Amino acid sequence: MIFKKNYVFMVVGSVLALFLFLTAQVKSAPDEGMWTFDNPPVKQLQERYGFTPTQQWLDNIRLASVRFMDGGSGSFVSPNGLVLTNHHVAMGQLQKLSTAENNYVADGFLAATLEDEIKSPDLEVNILVSMEDVTKEVMKAVKPGMSDADALKARRTTIAEIEKKSQKKTGLRSDVVGLYRGGEYWLYRYKKYTDVRLVMAPERQAAYFGGDFDNFTYPRYDLDFAFFRVYENDKPLKTDNYLKWNSDGAVEDELVFVAGHPGSTNRLYTYSQVEFQRDFRYPQLLDYVEKYLNTLYNYSSKGPEQERRALGRIFGLENAKKAFTGEYNGLLDDALMAKSKKDEEDFRKLIASNPDWQNEFGDAWDAIEKLMTLNKERARAQFYRGVRGSQLAGNAMTLVRYVTEIKKPDADRLPGFHDSQLDELKFRLLSPAPIYADMEEVVFADGLKMSLDALGPDDEFLKIILKGRAPEDVARDLIQGTQMADVEFRKALMEGGETKVLESEDPLIVLARELDPLSREDEKWFRENIESKLTPASEKIAQARFAAYGKTTYPDATFTLRLSYGTVSGYPMNGTKAPYKTTLYGVYDRSLSFDQEGDFALPQRFWDRIDQLDLATPVNFVCTADIIGGNSGSPVVNRKGEIVGLIFDGNIESLPGRFVYDEAKNRAVSVHTAYIMEAMDKLYDADKLVAEILER
Amino acid sequence: MIFKKNYVFMVVGSVLALFLFLTAQVKSAPDEGMWTFDNPPVKQLQERYGFTPTQQWLDNIRLASVRFMDGGSGSFVSPNGLVLTNHHVAMGQLQKLSTAENNYVADGFLAATLEDEIKSPDLEVNILVSMEDVTKEVMKAVKPGMSDADALKARRTTIAEIEKKSQKKTGLRSDVVGLYRGGEYWLYRYKKYTDVRLVMAPERQAAYFGGDFDNFTYPRYDLDFAFFRVYENDKPLKTDNYLKWNSDGAVEDELVFVAGHPGSTNRLYTYSQVEFQRDFRYPQLLDYVEKYLNTLYNYSSKGPEQERRALGRIFGLENAKKAFTGEYNGLLDDALMAKSKKDEEDFRKLIASNPDWQNEFGDAWDAIEKLMTLNKERARAQFYRGVRGSQLAGNAMTLVRYVTEIKKPDADRLPGFHDSQLDELKFRLLSPAPIYADMEEVVFADGLKMSLDALGPDDEFLKIILKGRAPEDVARDLIQGTQMADVEFRKALMEGGETKVLESEDPLIVLARELDPLSREDEKWFRENIESKLTPASEKIAQARFAAYGKTTYPDATFTLRLSYGTVSGYPMNGTKAPYKTTLYGVYDRSLSFDQEGDFALPQRFWDRIDQLDLATPVNFVCTADIIGGNSGSPVVNRKGEIVGLIFDGNIESLPGRFVYDEAKNRAVSVHTAYIMEAMDKLYDADKLVAEILER
Repeated sequence: MIFKKNYVFMVVGSVLALFLFLTAQVKSAPDEGMWTFDNPPVKQLQERYGFTPTQQWLDNIRLASVRFMDGGSGSFVSPNGLVLTNHHVAMGQLQKLSTAENNYVADGFLAATLEDEIKSPDLEVNILVSMEDVTKEVMKAVKPGMSDADALKARRTTIAEIEKKSQKKTGLRSDVVGLYRGGEYWLYRYKKYTDVRLVMAPERQAAYFGGDFDNFTYPRYDLDFAFFRVYENDKPLKTDNYLKWNSDGAVEDELVFVAGHPGSTNRLYTYSQVEFQRDFRYPQLLDYVEKYLNTLYNYSSKGPEQERRALGRIFGLENAKKAFTGEYNGLLDDALMAKSKKDEEDFRKLIASNPDWQNEFGDAWDAIEKLMTLNKERARAQFYRGVRGSQLAGNAMTLVRYVTEIKKPDADRLPGFHDSQLDELKFRLLSPAPIYADMEEVVFADGLKMSLDALGPDDEFLKIILKGRAPEDVARDLIQGTQMADVEFRKALMEGGETKVLESEDPLIVLARELDPLSREDEKWFRENIESKLTPASEKIAQARFAAYGKTTYPDATFTLRLSYGTVSGYPMNGTKAPYKTTLYGVYDRSLSFDQEGDFALPQRFWDRIDQLDLATPVNFVCTADIIGGNSGSPVVNRKGEIVGLIFDGNIESLPGRFVYDEAKNRAVSVHTAYIMEAMDKLYDADKLVAEILER
Repeated sequence: MIFKKNYVFMVVGSVLALFLFLTAQVKSAPDEGMWTFDNPPVKQLQERYGFTPTQQWLDNIRLASVRFMDGGSGSFVSPNGLVLTNHHVAMGQLQKLSTAENNYVADGFLAATLEDEIKSPDLEVNILVSMEDVTKEVMKAVKPGMSDADALKARRTTIAEIEKKSQKKTGLRSDVVGLYRGGEYWLYRYKKYTDVRLVMAPERQAAYFGGDFDNFTYPRYDLDFAFFRVYENDKPLKTDNYLKWNSDGAVEDELVFVAGHPGSTNRLYTYSQVEFQRDFRYPQLLDYVEKYLNTLYNYSSKGPEQERRALGRIFGLENAKKAFTGEYNGLLDDALMAKSKKDEEDFRKLIASNPDWQNEFGDAWDAIEKLMTLNKERARAQFYRGVRGSQLAGNAMTLVRYVTEIKKPDADRLPGFHDSQLDELKFRLLSPAPIYADMEEVVFADGLKMSLDALGPDDEFLKIILKGRAPEDVARDLIQGTQMADVEFRKALMEGGETKVLESEDPLIVLARELDPLSREDEKWFRENIESKLTPASEKIAQARFAAYGKTTYPDATFTLRLSYGTVSGYPMNGTKAPYKTTLYGVYDRSLSFDQEGDFALPQRFWDRIDQLDLATPVNFVCTADIIGGNSGSPVVNRKGEIVGLIFDGNIESLPGRFVYDEAKNRAVSVHTAYIMEAMDKLYDADKLVAEILER
């Protein structure tokens, strides 16, 4: 299953993550690409499919597309703010809304009336209302003769200013996003909503049928949908832009489109960057995820309430593990690596063939290779110098830093603390969603043990945090002693400013104060020694590509709105071929094939009402559209702009797609609109919702 | 789909094939092994499953097991000679019995009464009634000081004598089979039946649902069964030994057994032999199969009757192509090859550690490596010096040789022409099954073109056959001019002896006379330079293994009766897990998933009668039992000796099993007895047959 964009990085939560966000541009190929809406693949669509999207068609899809800020995509499917997304995108909110008594994850949820719709504790969604090219403005910030570090800072300051000015002027969320790294900067303005209410979700057993086993695979049989409703001024949002529902779906070989928010891709890393991933980054991540999972399974095994509490994190980690493994397998594929090397060699030869190009861009590859070597030396230690896994500790670190940064002029603040970013920061920090102290304690303790194993007791980080004591004891005292689980306490500290935080005797705040200088120092080292040098080098490569091939490409994914396109089509799989769709017959086959055990059990209603169902109903289908984590919940639309499916995963063969798209086997997996309707109508009695969607 | 044992070798039909039959012995491992009935895996069954088979249990299974001489296995399932096997084992006879008007392959067949059962034109089946260790007798044939060539001849002569004597004395088919090459020779005596009548077969669409795509894969949904009845003196054979039917089948993790006739394995080739396969043999075979298929598809595309005629060969070749590809992929797996190398190094070190062993066996590996190098030089040309693909030409070659060989004393004859082998030879040569001259012509012509491309026009073989003319012209004149398609003509020549054949002006007989000396010369070269040296070297390695590890192992497969055992169990597959069984729901899912197109269409009766079926009925299931081509049609039995399934395939992961068994992923695929019953009862109205099987 493709997952919500941010999860991976929440898990690793390290400054290293930024290297995963590097963008680059790519040569276009059949059905490849995650295109920005200012530069849709018109030529490709005309040549291959004889289809030309109108501006109105594009605008409607864009304005009907919803970004879920906790990671994921969605779309309006009624004029009354009704948003369709995946169950697994809704999972975080479902878990936060659930208690030991009311388990919406296990039992599903259906609001009988508007009044029954429940407000999500900390869900922000965005609609992209405008895009403006601000490349020139950003570029002007860097003056000739500036040091790399100064240039980096100047660019950041300018970006923060543009964002702040736009926000003030328009009242819209304003983000400057770097595309074609070094090629373009765009100001994206979003209408932002934080009153988002849960309308419907099926049981997880139906949504995530097949569990971790079937995750990221196909043929598949999942009912992975959920509905939210966006409210404005306590009333359902009225919107002109929504997608008409089409339950007939797409036929085999039909052209379809996907609009959504792919999180990140690394399609044009230099070879040395790819090697860094293969030889260092992935082995480290997989080791960490494995250990973290062990901790959570241990905790989870202690009782049903522990199991419920840990479920969301386990889900995310199992998902990450499967994704990382698939991506890593791509990197271990000798043929893929050889191709990557060859492509780079060809590109460099082409650049070298023109003296001007060679002079301007030619040194960038070697520069990056050196940076990767330098990075490797420090990155391993850095990875383990974090309070990963504990939300309470993480919040304490953010609070301590917040009160210091906020006093500085906007331009001088660290990334994440600019005025334009504060709303989001507060929304997250002051979320009323429950934090489970008992789970925090074991995760924190095991995280510290991992750090101890990796760094040894003499590392500065561990000296500060452990002071010679055992990780379990430290974690217990900190978590049991802190008041950080209380939203009001966090709010008081935040509003009390630096004085209040400096005086606080809360043990986690005290620890955060002690750790902050070390962590600033480490981050500074990375900024000055890696990032500020990597940025201009990557820019050069991007510009070299523009010079050599022109702007015929799409930028790497950046969790901003993109348009993908492709064909509904099966593919060769494990010796046979996978069909383009599956049916309700298959749901029952797969369940009975495993004697209805474990992840292959179906909710009882599936058995009680089997005779009412049309078992030939399509359930899931695949298409060649180019997607990745963050696209979860994206609508699949046809030429008419009608919604025919709901992206919820990529197949196992798509995982190396982080680095290379392969049309032969890379497939996006969607829930068929017919299955959602059949289920709402005949299994869940969601008549009102059906009527709203079908505009009856 | 695993296939009938002989097919591969019929296709390649070359003297090289003998290298594929080399046997060796293997260290035993969990659920691994194809055990002879004189040496069942009692220890393994006791230790792992707490099960001890009684002699009576073993005898009943052995005597209920049926060998299909055109490749495949089966079992008695009623006291009246009713034999259950696979549809694809019956396929050859179904095709021979079909005409343009009566297509039993496409439409299926059900004999309403005994009188309606149709006699197969050339089907021989065998029951293994006794086994006798004749190792000492065979060993005595080789005297000290004999040359390798003389030793080979002496052994062959002795074997032919033992067979002849036994046949004369008992009236039973008597085959001496070499097991644990160089370790043991056994005289296997079979009751042989040639009056075998077709009782029932479903439509190929149901039996081979999913076609070449799903072949050799799982999850699977095939109704791959057929019934024959063995007759004796024109009456149904009465047999005490048959398997009781159990439609409940086996539950997950249950112990089951497979009794059948695995064709050949190469589990303990030396590393140099495996390299020979990887670097020379498989690339050559795959290239040949690909070209042969092109020829047949061309022919097949000319009309429905051509399509019908070519279907059997295309089926066999597509099956071989998929099997070879899977086996070849195993050989291309670096980890598997490294393990093979390491195992051999360890074994050789162990032998070297004992001076006696080293002295006796130590030089065998290097000897074989040299033989492989020598073989490679000549094998390529030899492969293309054959009249492959044309049954008429092949029969002519055999006839010409037959009349010469038959005049010699039995001991001096070439292999295949000993008295003990003549019945089978005549049965095949005088089969009344149709031969399609128009198909023969194109296949023969394209085969000659392949030889011409490979060898050039100056090769002796091509000079004799083409005499400077074009392959198409030669093939046309030969096939259109010959009377060999007429059984009576063949019979007259055979009975007329050398004089008649020498005088014949039939163009194919004339050609066969011209080619015979060259082909004798080539075969002699291989016998004297390769086989006679490879045999003692392989013997040494076998004896070395006995010396080092004892006789705790099973011999490589030899198309003789074997017992395998294993657990009913799913396995990890393409990122998820495959279930231990599939259900009738899945049949409909897979058909509808492909919009009922092509190989995924079901016979109309499946739709007409869907409401009468219990869709939860298990359809196919997998177990860890160790099988290979030749096991097709083998019964799967439980501890009680009841039949619970019908082997029809191995999964794609099992194909490297020719070289290495891997319990984690290697699975045998069976039709569930419940599916056969459900189909016979509710889809095919085979009430009488159901009553016979269930003894109602």
